[in-house]
Amino acid sequence: MVAVFFTVRVRDQGRERFLEGLRKRARLVDKRKGFEKIDVLQDQKDPNRFVVLTWWADYQDFVAWQQSDEFAIAHSRSSELMAETNLEVFNVVLSEPVTEQPAD
Amino acid sequence: MVAVFFTVRVRDQGRERFLEGLRKRARLVDKRKGFEKIDVLQDQKDPNRFVVLTWWADYQDFVAWQQSDEFAIAHSRSSELMAETNLEVFNVVLSEPVTEQPAD
Repeated sequence: MVAVFFTVRVRDQGRERFLEGLRKRARLVDKRKGFEKIDVLQDQKDPNRFVVLTWWADYQDFVAWQQSDEFAIAHSRSSELMAETNLEVFNVVLSEPVTEQPAD
Repeated sequence: MVAVFFTVRVRDQGRERFLEGLRKRARLVDKRKGFEKIDVLQDQKDPNRFVVLTWWADYQDFVAWQQSDEFAIAHSRSSELMAETNLEVFNVVLSEPVTEQPAD
């Protein structure tokens, strides 16, 4: 499993639209092969800074999502709200407690 | 719920000991009030860089853990393995799909 950190600083006036867009986008990404879950995290020290954390069965599943039309549409809608972005990919080496068994 | 990011760069020769310590430490932290889960993430671009991500019902539960003797013991054991560390706390504003219902 991989965890993808999309770190974003949003412009002051765009925060609510950014969050509303994520609530809708979460349902879009839900249907992708390999998608496990999404967590949207807000920095306690900087309320305009977020980490959008998506979890994927396999790195290639994330790459396929990133190259999809839906991804381009979702990100083009919100790009004007973002002041800074950064993307990092991590391998999940430990996860406890285990909440579900892998499918294979 | 809050998510605590403990970002660490470990020294080259300490990686396996660092991971072994985390496997044991996970069981220690498991018993703390408010602890939800732990994820250990390894940077795909820098295998010596990790994010130890712990999830807590409430920020105060994390603070209590951070001030406990067990925390001091766990971190003193591994501090010699770490070259750089950084701590950030995030509020969880969205988490989908929901895998379990909150207790209250």
